[in-house]
Amino acid sequence: MDASIQSGQVWSPVITPFNERLEPDARRFAAHCQWLIDQNVGLAVFGTNSEASSLTVQEKCRLLDALVEQGVSGERLMPGVGSCSIGDTMTLAQHVLECGGANVLMLPPFYYKGVSEEGLFRYFSEVIERVASSRLKVYLYHIPPVSQVPITLALVERLKKRYPDTIAGLKDSSGEWDNTASLIDAFGDDMNIYAGSEHFLLQTLRVGGAGCISATANVNPGPIAALAQRFQDENAESRQQALSQVRRVFEGFPMIPALKAATAHYGGDDTWHRLRPPLVELSEPQRGELCQALDALDFTMPGYATSV
Amino acid sequence: MDASIQSGQVWSPVITPFNERLEPDARRFAAHCQWLIDQNVGLAVFGTNSEASSLTVQEKCRLLDALVEQGVSGERLMPGVGSCSIGDTMTLAQHVLECGGANVLMLPPFYYKGVSEEGLFRYFSEVIERVASSRLKVYLYHIPPVSQVPITLALVERLKKRYPDTIAGLKDSSGEWDNTASLIDAFGDDMNIYAGSEHFLLQTLRVGGAGCISATANVNPGPIAALAQRFQDENAESRQQALSQVRRVFEGFPMIPALKAATAHYGGDDTWHRLRPPLVELSEPQRGELCQALDALDFTMPGYATSV
Repeated sequence: MDASIQSGQVWSPVITPFNERLEPDARRFAAHCQWLIDQNVGLAVFGTNSEASSLTVQEKCRLLDALVEQGVSGERLMPGVGSCSIGDTMTLAQHVLECGGANVLMLPPFYYKGVSEEGLFRYFSEVIERVASSRLKVYLYHIPPVSQVPITLALVERLKKRYPDTIAGLKDSSGEWDNTASLIDAFGDDMNIYAGSEHFLLQTLRVGGAGCISATANVNPGPIAALAQRFQDENAESRQQALSQVRRVFEGFPMIPALKAATAHYGGDDTWHRLRPPLVELSEPQRGELCQALDALDFTMPGYATSV
Repeated sequence: MDASIQSGQVWSPVITPFNERLEPDARRFAAHCQWLIDQNVGLAVFGTNSEASSLTVQEKCRLLDALVEQGVSGERLMPGVGSCSIGDTMTLAQHVLECGGANVLMLPPFYYKGVSEEGLFRYFSEVIERVASSRLKVYLYHIPPVSQVPITLALVERLKKRYPDTIAGLKDSSGEWDNTASLIDAFGDDMNIYAGSEHFLLQTLRVGGAGCISATANVNPGPIAALAQRFQDENAESRQQALSQVRRVFEGFPMIPALKAATAHYGGDDTWHRLRPPLVELSEPQRGELCQALDALDFTMPGYATSV
């Protein structure tokens, strides 16, 4: 990890609350973000787990504004800005810069499948050239199970060579440790490589990766951040096992509804059950099973109900 | 096919021209649309072949405005309005209505994969309820090779039952004739079912389907429309074979760059070679091969160069 572009070890792809009209609830969003900051994780707002693709660019800009109004520092932010169009991606990236942020997490355009490396290189290049700011720090977002459009090592190499000061890192949500290890081996000296799950947190940090950007950092942020900070301690393996136990419970359900159900239950706020279509909330029996499994691990969200 | 909602037998997913700054070229777009109307095909602007996902909602609204200014009648339009968010889809559908249109082609939200039928039902329902116009006619867009999110017969049935006057049809770009036949069998009396390629045009019309919405209707519109109008003539089979020969040439190349290369060559306007990333233009050798194969079939775009 390049210390000069250090920007945090653990980030949460922040879940997005909706009111009864399915509009983003900026107050609850900002309060959830403040709790995450207090738990020592960064705000990767507008990620896959944020239902970002279900939000318009305008809605995302207004949510960013709410964080600025609350005094959130730009260095705490790594908003997802990716979309299928250069225009929407550029607009949101520029707004991040206007809000004092610099880091952006960028999906490849994901409608067309089987596109060429040349086409993806041109896409990212167009966005970077149009934003035209030396402050911009792009984190590439590799999540082939969802986007179906991979970001290959060859593409990363080409982009890093062309934009060495802008291409700052990558999130690997392939779920394949070998791919993460290859990325750290190839680029770990000059880029922040993040695993997409805390299952790989200890492994990632031990070989020089930056940390993780993980769904479950929405609900279990403190313990994940604690392992990252003390990964060289003797008890790191047992901390890792405890994190993975919690993660595996969530993996037994549709992830985003489960994150929201846990936040509703342990945060004491039923509003969080709501999702935007095409996603649907957990059923009552699923909610019961989730909470029973988490209770068995003595899971809590410390201080949530009082702070939010 | 329900005659009361008849809206044309052949539609072109209109290719989108870009200027040297990669901005949509509204003048060329409107001229291409006029040529297509003169060739007797409808305007399914903002489809997959239009690079619609590479355009912002604002860009699409401005292109629609250009068609209205040119006097294009609303009944000639079936704009693609699908996106990943209810908000963007609703905004564009409302603009179609403001422009005098009624038909819209609607993709499912395509970022999340493996979503439930319930989630998709809620998504389409939210859009329809929010647009809240009895004029709206929704054509569902099934294109699993690209969207990776299928529209099942069960979903169509549920939507048609809930919104009988709004769900007007479906475009089947699965490429699987059995699926198209099943859709026509199940819904052909009350909905316009379109094949996604003219390969299936004669078969579709013979069993009561509405026609086709096809990429190659951008470049070969007249002959495709002629078969649709005279599909009960004796020479229909040989017309179908001639159409399929042309289509197969294009299928030997990346489709959208090939449509643009053919329009550039046979329309005499090199501007058309340009695509938005992540798509890339055909190489010079590919262009040569394409035109050689088309010349061998005596392919032309009659009247294009002078009218556009």
